[in-house]
Amino acid sequence: MEFVTGTIDERSIGLKELFNNNNQGNNVFIEGAVHSIRNMGEITFIILRKRDGLVQTVLEENKLNSQSDKVREGDYIRVKGTVRDEERAPHGKEICIESYEHITRITESLPIAIDKWKLNTSLETKLNHRAIALRNIRERAKFRIQEAIGRGFREYLQKEGFTEIHTPKVGAKSAEGGANMFKLTYFHRPAVLQQSPQLYKQMMVGVFDRVFEVGPVFRAEKHNTRRHLNEYTSMDFEMGYIQSFMDICQMETGFLQYTMELLANEYADELRILKLELPKVDKIPYVRFDEAKKLVSEKYGKTIKNPFDLEPEEEELIGKYFKEEYDSDFVFVTHYPSKKRPFYALDDPSDDRYTLSFDLLYKGLEITTGGQRIHEYDMLLEKIEKKGMTEEGLEDYLDVFKYGMPPHGGLGIGLERLTMQLLGEDNVREACLFPRDLSRLTP
Amino acid sequence: MEFVTGTIDERSIGLKELFNNNNQGNNVFIEGAVHSIRNMGEITFIILRKRDGLVQTVLEENKLNSQSDKVREGDYIRVKGTVRDEERAPHGKEICIESYEHITRITESLPIAIDKWKLNTSLETKLNHRAIALRNIRERAKFRIQEAIGRGFREYLQKEGFTEIHTPKVGAKSAEGGANMFKLTYFHRPAVLQQSPQLYKQMMVGVFDRVFEVGPVFRAEKHNTRRHLNEYTSMDFEMGYIQSFMDICQMETGFLQYTMELLANEYADELRILKLELPKVDKIPYVRFDEAKKLVSEKYGKTIKNPFDLEPEEEELIGKYFKEEYDSDFVFVTHYPSKKRPFYALDDPSDDRYTLSFDLLYKGLEITTGGQRIHEYDMLLEKIEKKGMTEEGLEDYLDVFKYGMPPHGGLGIGLERLTMQLLGEDNVREACLFPRDLSRLTP
Repeated sequence: MEFVTGTIDERSIGLKELFNNNNQGNNVFIEGAVHSIRNMGEITFIILRKRDGLVQTVLEENKLNSQSDKVREGDYIRVKGTVRDEERAPHGKEICIESYEHITRITESLPIAIDKWKLNTSLETKLNHRAIALRNIRERAKFRIQEAIGRGFREYLQKEGFTEIHTPKVGAKSAEGGANMFKLTYFHRPAVLQQSPQLYKQMMVGVFDRVFEVGPVFRAEKHNTRRHLNEYTSMDFEMGYIQSFMDICQMETGFLQYTMELLANEYADELRILKLELPKVDKIPYVRFDEAKKLVSEKYGKTIKNPFDLEPEEEELIGKYFKEEYDSDFVFVTHYPSKKRPFYALDDPSDDRYTLSFDLLYKGLEITTGGQRIHEYDMLLEKIEKKGMTEEGLEDYLDVFKYGMPPHGGLGIGLERLTMQLLGEDNVREACLFPRDLSRLTP
Repeated sequence: MEFVTGTIDERSIGLKELFNNNNQGNNVFIEGAVHSIRNMGEITFIILRKRDGLVQTVLEENKLNSQSDKVREGDYIRVKGTVRDEERAPHGKEICIESYEHITRITESLPIAIDKWKLNTSLETKLNHRAIALRNIRERAKFRIQEAIGRGFREYLQKEGFTEIHTPKVGAKSAEGGANMFKLTYFHRPAVLQQSPQLYKQMMVGVFDRVFEVGPVFRAEKHNTRRHLNEYTSMDFEMGYIQSFMDICQMETGFLQYTMELLANEYADELRILKLELPKVDKIPYVRFDEAKKLVSEKYGKTIKNPFDLEPEEEELIGKYFKEEYDSDFVFVTHYPSKKRPFYALDDPSDDRYTLSFDLLYKGLEITTGGQRIHEYDMLLEKIEKKGMTEEGLEDYLDVFKYGMPPHGGLGIGLERLTMQLLGEDNVREACLFPRDLSRLTP
């Protein structure tokens, strides 16, 4: 009998091992995608793309009859050669080709010049050819940054005693959500796609005290803006035994601090490629909703149209204010009006027109909504009635509160929005591998 | 201006800090759910449930007028008391209550006796009261084990140079899948829920070389068995530059080895609660599909009905065979028939009735399907034609192959199935927080 033992004999080594000084002058093997070709007459530079970067290989005209097996951009090849110093090459090294062979050949030329430093195409074209456009080094790096954010979220929360959960995305119709939910038929029964794991994660606080989930959420909103996606990745957590919603803000700040460290330490290549500077997150100012409106109205001379609503333009001004006054890219806006929050939000006992909740703005864009939730059964029933809702479809959720729940709160962070703001992009579609919007269902 | 700095002033400390020897005799505060109450006359044991375990607290009759503020199972309370040794208590310590106050009161008695060591209820009842049933210590521990598996998958693959991706779950209808997909209307257009991230993860191999995703998949299969869910969490990876599909088996074995280590090191409490013994994964046997059928047919005297199909009963026997002959809970069954594999599976060049693919069986149940994929454009077109399919809906996928792809392969692991087998459960619903099946759409 033969066995699998868990070790792979890797034919092609990573860039770090490749450019290890011991390899200088040695024969090495490398496999990669032909990212670009620069024919200089007597020599040809063939730049290979690997997951960890680009490698310059050099083909000398006299070495091979290059006509017999021509390399084209997009092909995959296997190169045998020697490593030598070359300060103008990426990593200060290049590989002088002894021989090469094809792994795969393209059947058509690439539709986009992915070897350009910045892709010179419209967002529309990029998205139409998404899987090709992402082969561009800068485009690709954006999603490594996104990976780091997801990692940071999970690693930090795990450290803080949170348990990861997976809750269902298909469910029965409930009183929450309503028009903003996609509907489907589930074995002859009406069902919806969840717009948030909210009710499930709250229910799980009674089990694990602290839980988190990273997963897709679905919003059938007919917005076609630079800030909206109809399917996005939500990073959610919920924690019990809080003293106030400020504990949630603290936890989110801790996550941001951890993630910026992680980016600085383990994603330095990507930060360099994208020329990103990480925001300061050692302390984040917070301000009441009504106070924030007043501050920007005074400073920027805007009249407050609706004291219970925050328009995107006002969010931007709040972001601007805290950048100018406190040099902070982030600001927690607290005490949102009850009218604008869902039924489970806990009202401020000292003024029930407002809730014990918050948004986190990053460069003037909401990237998080969170707050303390109602944890008492009777109060929940009252609030549901006050909102003019019924208990229909909420039975399982409400049951949990009959049997006891601790004070708790949590938040949801839009992964794509946070990525977008960190990258300095102006459209959230730039920060989503395959965006879903009003007009886009493919690729 | 006030700032959030990322530190929480925790009122209630964790069990480890609580039972730190320096606390002996000291006044401590602890908040928890009243898990069970045992009234012994002069003293009452109140067992509190925290995320990291149970704590015994002791209320002496003469200390408090217990009638005035009676504690009930399910309530949440805040206790002030002193720590003392008590070898019969969990962790060998108990807290002698000085005073307590209510955080939350139940409004109804719990519908299930969650303080029993094993819940004495049917699966149906457990699932109907899922969020309550999970407050049982053993039920809860199962999902900590599940968390560890997901962590193991991500941590191992990150270490191996894989990038995490998030691909859309709502998509346009394609030639793959067909009847097994849930349909919905997406802004007046027909759409489906993805049954797998397969095509997306392959497309991303051209970008990152190695990718993984952990997320929900949706199968509209009308199976009502102990092994099937209509929504489950799939752990998928896909890797480029492989030499054969055995590289995929190696990577999966490495993941299992890493995860068993992680469980042993960081989830010892849960393993103890569940009395779990971890399977040996240092080496996993592999056997061809046709050979496996022959082996079990010979040993267990079964006639082979269909040489190109594997029935659940045969899977069980293969599992049994390799347990008996090689003391292995796992076995890779390789070279599945082409007829039973999707169009993207690479046929064995030496016999195209079979594919270069595999299933991993764990205790006789398929927990993984994987294999090498076709990476050449022309071969893909041929295979699609051979399967009697059309290219409709596959345009974006196929385009990627025109522009070059490396040899690659990957797999999908059902998180719930792997958890179920590790736990020794006989129904996959035991390993899913909120299962979705033919009859269950709530809670």
